[in-house]
Amino acid sequence: MLTISGKNCIGYADSALGAQTFQAVNPVSDTSFGISFVRATDKEVDLAVSKADEAFRAWSSTPLQSRVAFLKAVAVAVRSHAAELTRWYCEETGLPLSRAKTELERSCFQFESYAEAIATGFALSIRIDTSSAPGKPDLRKMNVPLGPVVIFGASNFPFAYSTLGGDVASALAAGCPVIVKAHPMHPHTSELSARIILSVAQELGLPDGVFSHLQAVDYKVGEQLVLHPQVKAVGFTGSIKGGTALVRLANSRVVPIPVYAEMGSSNPIVFTTDALTSRCESIAKEVAASISLSAGQFCTSPGLLLMVDSEAANRFLSSLSVLLKQTEPQVMLHPGIYKQYEQQALQQLEGSEILVNGLRSSNTIQPSLVRISGRQLLREPGRAEEVFGSFATAIVCENETELLTCLNALSGQLTASLYLEPHENGAFLISALQQFAGRIILNGVPTGVAVSEAMQHGGPFPSSSIPSSTAVGADAIQRFMRPVCFQNVTDDLLPNPLKIANPEAVLRFVNGLFTNAPC
Amino acid sequence: MLTISGKNCIGYADSALGAQTFQAVNPVSDTSFGISFVRATDKEVDLAVSKADEAFRAWSSTPLQSRVAFLKAVAVAVRSHAAELTRWYCEETGLPLSRAKTELERSCFQFESYAEAIATGFALSIRIDTSSAPGKPDLRKMNVPLGPVVIFGASNFPFAYSTLGGDVASALAAGCPVIVKAHPMHPHTSELSARIILSVAQELGLPDGVFSHLQAVDYKVGEQLVLHPQVKAVGFTGSIKGGTALVRLANSRVVPIPVYAEMGSSNPIVFTTDALTSRCESIAKEVAASISLSAGQFCTSPGLLLMVDSEAANRFLSSLSVLLKQTEPQVMLHPGIYKQYEQQALQQLEGSEILVNGLRSSNTIQPSLVRISGRQLLREPGRAEEVFGSFATAIVCENETELLTCLNALSGQLTASLYLEPHENGAFLISALQQFAGRIILNGVPTGVAVSEAMQHGGPFPSSSIPSSTAVGADAIQRFMRPVCFQNVTDDLLPNPLKIANPEAVLRFVNGLFTNAPC
Repeated sequence: MLTISGKNCIGYADSALGAQTFQAVNPVSDTSFGISFVRATDKEVDLAVSKADEAFRAWSSTPLQSRVAFLKAVAVAVRSHAAELTRWYCEETGLPLSRAKTELERSCFQFESYAEAIATGFALSIRIDTSSAPGKPDLRKMNVPLGPVVIFGASNFPFAYSTLGGDVASALAAGCPVIVKAHPMHPHTSELSARIILSVAQELGLPDGVFSHLQAVDYKVGEQLVLHPQVKAVGFTGSIKGGTALVRLANSRVVPIPVYAEMGSSNPIVFTTDALTSRCESIAKEVAASISLSAGQFCTSPGLLLMVDSEAANRFLSSLSVLLKQTEPQVMLHPGIYKQYEQQALQQLEGSEILVNGLRSSNTIQPSLVRISGRQLLREPGRAEEVFGSFATAIVCENETELLTCLNALSGQLTASLYLEPHENGAFLISALQQFAGRIILNGVPTGVAVSEAMQHGGPFPSSSIPSSTAVGADAIQRFMRPVCFQNVTDDLLPNPLKIANPEAVLRFVNGLFTNAPC
Repeated sequence: MLTISGKNCIGYADSALGAQTFQAVNPVSDTSFGISFVRATDKEVDLAVSKADEAFRAWSSTPLQSRVAFLKAVAVAVRSHAAELTRWYCEETGLPLSRAKTELERSCFQFESYAEAIATGFALSIRIDTSSAPGKPDLRKMNVPLGPVVIFGASNFPFAYSTLGGDVASALAAGCPVIVKAHPMHPHTSELSARIILSVAQELGLPDGVFSHLQAVDYKVGEQLVLHPQVKAVGFTGSIKGGTALVRLANSRVVPIPVYAEMGSSNPIVFTTDALTSRCESIAKEVAASISLSAGQFCTSPGLLLMVDSEAANRFLSSLSVLLKQTEPQVMLHPGIYKQYEQQALQQLEGSEILVNGLRSSNTIQPSLVRISGRQLLREPGRAEEVFGSFATAIVCENETELLTCLNALSGQLTASLYLEPHENGAFLISALQQFAGRIILNGVPTGVAVSEAMQHGGPFPSSSIPSSTAVGADAIQRFMRPVCFQNVTDDLLPNPLKIANPEAVLRFVNGLFTNAPC
């Protein structure tokens, strides 16, 4: 049984030098839990970074197998503490136990599958060109870790995008020491998570500083971390405002660093009239379930429904309205999130045709649905902005041309969905969606992000700060690496994955072919 | 025979709306050639971008084979115009014909090998996870082009990093329309290059706007291009000042875009005492040749020579001095470049022990060599800054510890070299070099950048703005793409490379294995 102390973890040492504390809130009862979390001080931030920097040299040159073993052991340890973790998760978020269990398993799977991507060499992007012609050099390139990485925990995924999240798993897999700035809405879950990671690291004898965990409510600790000269990259999941602020900060450094910010998205769904005609009820059910899932507190929650005006469209919207009204009211993650939702929702409700008004009081909501015309969207582009929480805007266009114009007016999105019938030619719609989205879903909703090599979770700005990266799937590891080429370096001086014998049997692109063979 | 008109190429149309003109200068005779180049106007810039944007939709969805055919045809056409191209190249730069011919072949090889990387699917980074478990989606991800790309021609590579350069080749290979802002030091070579690309494009029936070519001496045209909302990425090779200015500009946009700037580098070489003892003369010859190559006007020209104080070090520096003094004086690319060199060299000569002062007059230089102590470098970090042109600073350290301290104090570099003997343990030195360099060369000089998949031409800031990218080798294509995932999209709506039958037989990572098989 691990104890929650309210302290920061500076490597393996507990630390609580600060005078400021905060408590977390149970969003159902709106009461706090009694444990005070001590805000990290400037000195503690500095110490965490310098420990990480010191750990980096040792950790980054550790054989791949130690990294793999560490990541896998974290998954095992997390599962063995599942009861405590999910209990705190539910208390801090108001989310149901089923969701907590699914998300915990997702976290474990991320650690395991990213470990696999390192073990196989997939994430190392090794390319080898051996000299054949005289004078041509022997070139061997692989990804190496960047250095200490700062990860910000997210409010809406206390496991999968927080201390046990995909950013942490991918940065550790890359070989980078990680400093987590925990999200203040779930500090108990975060501290427990941190202690699990740290106990595994210590048991395996990993260098002190490979992982640290800092608590704070305000932005200052995060700012100090992003500006610290020894920090080499940042991972963030949250709002456009928060993400762009971090990007600006990182760009203001003497040596700028990448901020991988996964920000807002309205996840438009396009429906053809034929699809709404033939599958009105089943589509309405799918969409209603997606909008209402976890009170819409997902970056992939669908917020825009685009269609051409028709009888089928009217029928669909009325079915959807009925279904949304029937959904159980849900508690939002935090009174602060509810307040922000209320403000954004009121703004969108005004000036729209209100089909469902789901605003309730005291942190609880049902989904809302409003209707506007295509023309109105083009006049007021703010109508397409994300409302964080269950809120959908139906954009009913005069004709297909206006629908396309509306699509072309949308800013970058994580996802875009298209419901159409098999006999229809949707090529031009797919092509329009591809212009602004990172993932295109046919006849399906955007919620549910599979962890797999083929996943892309990241789209054009402002959905992501670096649209060529993904936050989910093994390719996420590459965010925290950069390639280094070794030219004519003798075998004894090459890192293991590049040695002629290929002692770790990793996948390599050798003279034009992928192979595990020696070379 | 193609005519040089002095006009801008807005897609297939010649255009010269502007009133401002400029002429290029023969750096040997310091006289101009008589052809006036017309500065692009705001209107022409806008037109070039909107043509590129229009061309994008057609061009980006063209089958891979048309792109491949285009790139290969450019190489063929360039070779057939080699005589005209190399003549202008030599007249505009003062570089010898042998260099012009080598660089032309390099340009052609880049077009050809990047075509190959598209044809094989290597640059598409395709990942496919087919659904096996019920409820698991079918996910297919590939790189798609970003949109119109702006490439700035470089002063020092009129072929290989300019209108016919690697950035242009990789952006076209990615499927992006390209607008080149030509470098004003070699506008004849650039216009000829542009006309070759355009004639090939037109012959193959490619959409108007797939390529445009703009002339200007001042920065305004470039600024307008980088700020244009329809431009999606920028490629640049040049100074730290120029590169960081473009990055700042791109970050100031409502929708920021990536600027792939390959900037300055001092390319340190570390010599062990044993290496200098046993191979003094041969190393001195290699290093002297590398320093003096093309008057040092390379981003990989070695500028820092690090060693521990010893008799061997003194002997090496005196041999090197003799060799450098014996080199032929060389004309620099342009009076402007000479002037900048003179200024930077004078700054470095002052306060150093001058071993060779190569400053001459009227655009001509011999290499310079100065000597400072490790302590001086640590006190005056500006001593490690790049001097563009043949100029080397020997940093002679008291002992190995000081040498390591000096290495740790260096900023990001494109390359780092290490001369050591086979019996020595250089692991700690390789590890130190890896912290700041993108390419590590054992017992070799940094000049000479092979075009190959395993090449890495890009290092930590400030040598590159985006150190996870390379400017040379097929991985350069990825700079101008982003991944899109297609979820449960039916075969008829998938792009060719993702279709089940794999009709273009590209390489794909399918369910954990690289294969060309259908799936």
